[in-house]
Order: sequence, then structure tokens, then C-alpha cells
Amino acid sequence: MNSDHLLLGPGPSAPYPEAVEALQRPVLGHLDAEYLGVVAGIADRLRAVFRTSNELTLPVSGTGSAGMEACVVSLVEPGETVIVGVNGYFGERLCEVARRAGAQVVRVEAPWGTALDPADLLAARRAHPHAAVLAVVSAETSTGVRNDVAPVGAELAGTDTLLLVDAVTALGGTRLEVDAWGIDACYSASQKCLGAPPGLAPVTLGPRAVAKMAARRTPVGSFYLDLGLLQRYFLASPPTYHHTASSTLAYALHAGLGRLLEEGIEQVWERHARVGALLQAALPDLGFRLAAAEGVRLPQLTAALLPDGVDEAATRRRLLDEYGIEVGGGLGEFAGRAWRIGLMGHAATERSVVTVLGAVRELLKS
Amino acid sequence: MNSDHLLLGPGPSAPYPEAVEALQRPVLGHLDAEYLGVVAGIADRLRAVFRTSNELTLPVSGTGSAGMEACVVSLVEPGETVIVGVNGYFGERLCEVARRAGAQVVRVEAPWGTALDPADLLAARRAHPHAAVLAVVSAETSTGVRNDVAPVGAELAGTDTLLLVDAVTALGGTRLEVDAWGIDACYSASQKCLGAPPGLAPVTLGPRAVAKMAARRTPVGSFYLDLGLLQRYFLASPPTYHHTASSTLAYALHAGLGRLLEEGIEQVWERHARVGALLQAALPDLGFRLAAAEGVRLPQLTAALLPDGVDEAATRRRLLDEYGIEVGGGLGEFAGRAWRIGLMGHAATERSVVTVLGAVRELLKS
Repeated sequence: MNSDHLLLGPGPSAPYPEAVEALQRPVLGHLDAEYLGVVAGIADRLRAVFRTSNELTLPVSGTGSAGMEACVVSLVEPGETVIVGVNGYFGERLCEVARRAGAQVVRVEAPWGTALDPADLLAARRAHPHAAVLAVVSAETSTGVRNDVAPVGAELAGTDTLLLVDAVTALGGTRLEVDAWGIDACYSASQKCLGAPPGLAPVTLGPRAVAKMAARRTPVGSFYLDLGLLQRYFLASPPTYHHTASSTLAYALHAGLGRLLEEGIEQVWERHARVGALLQAALPDLGFRLAAAEGVRLPQLTAALLPDGVDEAATRRRLLDEYGIEVGGGLGEFAGRAWRIGLMGHAATERSVVTVLGAVRELLKS
Repeated sequence: MNSDHLLLGPGPSAPYPEAVEALQRPVLGHLDAEYLGVVAGIADRLRAVFRTSNELTLPVSGTGSAGMEACVVSLVEPGETVIVGVNGYFGERLCEVARRAGAQVVRVEAPWGTALDPADLLAARRAHPHAAVLAVVSAETSTGVRNDVAPVGAELAGTDTLLLVDAVTALGGTRLEVDAWGIDACYSASQKCLGAPPGLAPVTLGPRAVAKMAARRTPVGSFYLDLGLLQRYFLASPPTYHHTASSTLAYALHAGLGRLLEEGIEQVWERHARVGALLQAALPDLGFRLAAAEGVRLPQLTAALLPDGVDEAATRRRLLDEYGIEVGGGLGEFAGRAWRIGLMGHAATERSVVTVLGAVRELLKS
């Protein structure tokens, strides 16, 4: 038995049909020129989606958290300072990953449901002018908040501090401009707005980040997630063997990105904005309260506090059992109080909106 | 265009048809009870294949190298000593991963093509009685040599040193007895003798390894590869969210393991032994020289030095271009001089043997 749940949580979302079909392509060897051609195609497509000309653009062989860790451990040396914006669960995770990498972590906080103030982030950098990295989650999957990173990038350009941006939920869902916004390093995941199954983490590093990596005095603590080694495997000719990357996942990501670019990146952003607005306009009528403050709401991920008196876990369970619809529970401060409803990639449709709203409406009746 | 190369290199091998079919199952959420049921099923099947009752048995979300790194960084604290048997490329990799994790590495070497002497490994441990880990590659994919780990495990049982075994190429190909041989930690990969696509790394830790992990004074340097966190995600009820694991890869591994166990683990070993012997009996007649010494040859992976005067890379290229057959080139000391021919999992068949021998015979004529 295998259920085909309608995945409207924080990801994974159902992949595009093209990505599912691509999973059937015969497995190729990890050093096969044809496979490495697919990787090169992924890199090109990722550049279009990340809006960058960064040469070091590749899919890390792991999930979004592997992409996060690859960026942190490749860019930060033990003892260096990392400033992290924290207004949700994934900001906390960035702190944890940086701490484990031996960094001195400086937290810049904002309440859950509100956005980080770029001025606060920049003030922290002035207080720690030698910080190696300033890290921000651009789309906080735990709260549905969009953090504005462009003003930060503009200010960091003339400094020694790199801007690292978590785009796990952002990429392909809302505008993200790696080059124009001065983002030095950025990572995402295959299974959200890119419309492929989980398992790969797109990463891109700009010239400042590459130079920082080249100037390291200590080896990267991780072999598996060392972006310098991954570059010499995925992007060099001839490739230097590093690990047995999965052609199966690569085909699917390549196909998902192809479908996205065929529609057009601006059109995809517009679609996410449209369906997210529909959902967010309707939820308050059902008694939900949107967790993210007005003006900083992500369309692709809506965190909503449940109506008073409604049992979060039991109702979410019924939504899955009776309607086959998955939404996410709250994390951290929102655990037991909120749902996270994703409209991402292939699932960012009017049909998803009416489906989840219709089911919730029925459940709240009884 | 997508070629269906016959994969007879060091892995990936073609997955079992059941595993390919499983890739089409609808994606499930990473916290869905149905998905976690599949993970529990994988853990059970892995216990049968690892021949262990270890509770901590799970698929790491990465390739075999991620499994290696997960074991090393979870078990070793900075400054601790790790003894590594080195008689090929993957022993070297273990040294590199351990060094990056902050370990003091003690090498115990044997020439490429020969097996490690268990007495040498045990002597090194007596010289370093506080070594945290002694690590051995049981099936050295670079040379086709089987290293005997059972005598080492028997001796380490009464000590503070854990036995870590690389079973990337071994698992499901040749006899491996985690419990009976006293192996404390073992990792493998989905894409070789287990007959699934690449992307997951089975890992199992015994009680001594779990206790060592629990007694750490420092956090594991990696968040993504922290086996304690992975245990609390994959094996606990309720699960603690850690990362967005791929149901797609899980279905395929589950199916591959199912096919393997349906045939029977002893029968699978016997099949690998039979077809490996056929290949190794025939190669010398074509002028190849087997790289591994007699008595320690792996059936599932044959490293063979090419006949004098035959251009390694050009002939391997022709084998791929003219016959659509992939074999691996040599690594390290064997680069440019040897091929690595894998007969693993679904590809461990008489048909594979006659196919590769027939093509090579034709190529050597011209």
C-alpha cells in the first residue's frame, strides 16, 4: 500500500510529472560524461533560477540541511564569528550548525512571525567587523516570514563579511536575486518550489565566497560537504572522483528545473504569489490567524494559528486520514498551535487552495 | 537522449527492477507515519543483511562517503586516536575523514593488492591502547581485496577500542557478520550489492558504539551526519524532525533489500561468488593480471591490470562507446593501469560475465 497524499505541508511537495518520469531513466555512473552533462545542465538551470552567473553552482548530494552545512563548514573556520539572524526554527538551526563548526555565533533576533530588521543585522556587523559570515534565512519555513536580504547584501559588499542566504523555501517561489542582491553564498533544496523529490541541495557561491574558501588556513572539517572538493568533482574537466552521486536524483532535478524555466521564473513567482494570496485571504474567515505579520508574508508557505478550541494535532490527523491531505504542524514556538500550509512548485495551484480550504471547512463543522 | 549503459564498474550497478519501479511511488512527507513505516522496514531488512540485532540501524541521507563520515564524526572526538588499515584508496579516505574530524590517525599499511594483516592492526592497537576506533575497509573497492575483520573484532571486544568497518562494496556481496564478528559500527551504500540507486548509506551501530556516542564530551561536529540525531528522527516515536529525508530513495532501497532477502542472503553471496569466479578465471586468458592476491579476492569487484601494450583509457572508452558497457578505471596506484569490473547485486549474473568478456575479446583483437 502506498498513499498518494496531497502534500501541502512545508515540503516535500509533489514533484512535477516531468520529474517523476525522469526517475525512471537508467542509472548512469557517477563519472559518466553523459551524467556529468546532466549535472552541467542542472548547474546552468540553477544559475537561471538563482539569478547568478556564479561558476560554483552545483547540487550537493543531500537535503537542504546538507546544503546549509556545506556552506557553513566550507566558508567558516573554527574560531571565526558568524552573525545569524534568528526569527524562527531555521535561524536556530543555522546557529547550531555554525556552533558545531567551531564558530563564535552572534545572534540577531526578531520575534517569531516578524521579519528581521536589516538595520539590526548591519549593526551587529559593525559591532563585529571581522565576522566571516552573516547568515539569514530568506524564507523562514517555520513562520512563513520573508526576511529582506537585499539591503544587507548592499552594505556587506565593501566589507570582509560574506552574506549567506538560506533559500530552501524561497528558491523558485518568490523573487531571489543572488547577484543583484549581493548574496555571496546561497543554498536550497530540490523538494519545495523546484518541483523535484528530496535528496539534492542546490548551492551557489560567488567570487568572494570562493576566495574565502581558497584562503582557508585549516581544512574543511567535512570531507563529504567540502564545496571545494565538490567543485573539482562536478564542475572540473576531467572530474576528480569524490562520491557516487545519484544520477536518478539528478535527472529529476534537471527535469523539475526545466519545467520551471519553461513556465518562466517571473511567471512562477507570480503563480506562487497569486495562490498564496488566495489562501491567506480565506483562512481568517475560517477562524485562523496568520502567524506572519502583514507585508512580510510568504505566498509559498503560510503559517496559521488555529481557531480557538480546535485541537491542532487531532484536526491535522483527520485532514490526513479522511481527506489524504498533509499539512505541517508548527515548529518551536508554534508547536501545537499552528499549521504550516505549503503551496510550492507543482502544488502551487488554485486546485490545491480550494481542496485544502474545502476539507478544512468540513472538518471545522464537526 | 539517455543511454542505458551496462554498469559493470565499481558501482552504481543497475538497480533491481523492483527498486526502479518503487521510484514511481508517490512522494510522502518526511514525518508521515507511512513513510516512517517504510524506514522501519528498511531498518529491519538492513538488520537481516548486516546480520545484526543493533537497534541503531538506519539509512543516512547521502552516499557511502556520507555513511563513512557519519560514523567517524559521531564516534570520534577531536584529539582521539583512530587506527586505520590502509591498503587502498578507501583506507586513505578513512584517514582523510578522520583527520578532518580532528583525530590523531595511526596508519597500518599493506601493499595495494594484498590484504591487511589482522596481527598488524592488533599490534597497532597494543601500541595505542586508548585508540577510540580501529577502522578497516572490508572490501577495498580500489583493489578488489577482502580484508579479514573477524579476528580483529574478536580481540577488540575486551578493550576500549571500537571496530569500524567499511562495507560499502561488501554488504550483500560477500559474507559480513556484524554481530558474530564483533563489529561495532558499519556503513554501506545503496547502489552496489544492495541493488538500489545511489543516495542512501545504510549504517548500523552496536551497543559499545552507542555508549561511546552517549559519553561524548563535545558535540558532534556535523549536524547533518550526527547519528544520535538521526536515531531520534528515524527510529524514535514520535520522531524528532531532523531533515527532509527522501521517500523516493527509501522506497527503492526497501524494494532492493526485499528482492535480496527473497533470494536469501546466503544465496546472494553464493551467486556473487560464482559469477566472480567465472570472470576471474577468464581474465588471465585475455592477458589481464588480477590485482588482488589469490585467496583474498572479492568476487563482486575485480581489479585487473591490463595486458601489456593496451591503452587503458582508450580501450575503456571504446568499451563504453561501442558496446555501451561501463567498467571503472584504476584509482591511486592502479590509475591508468587497471580496470575495476563490478558484478554486484542485479548485475551479478552469468550474462554480465559473458557480455563483458565477449566485448573485451573483440576489442583486444583490433
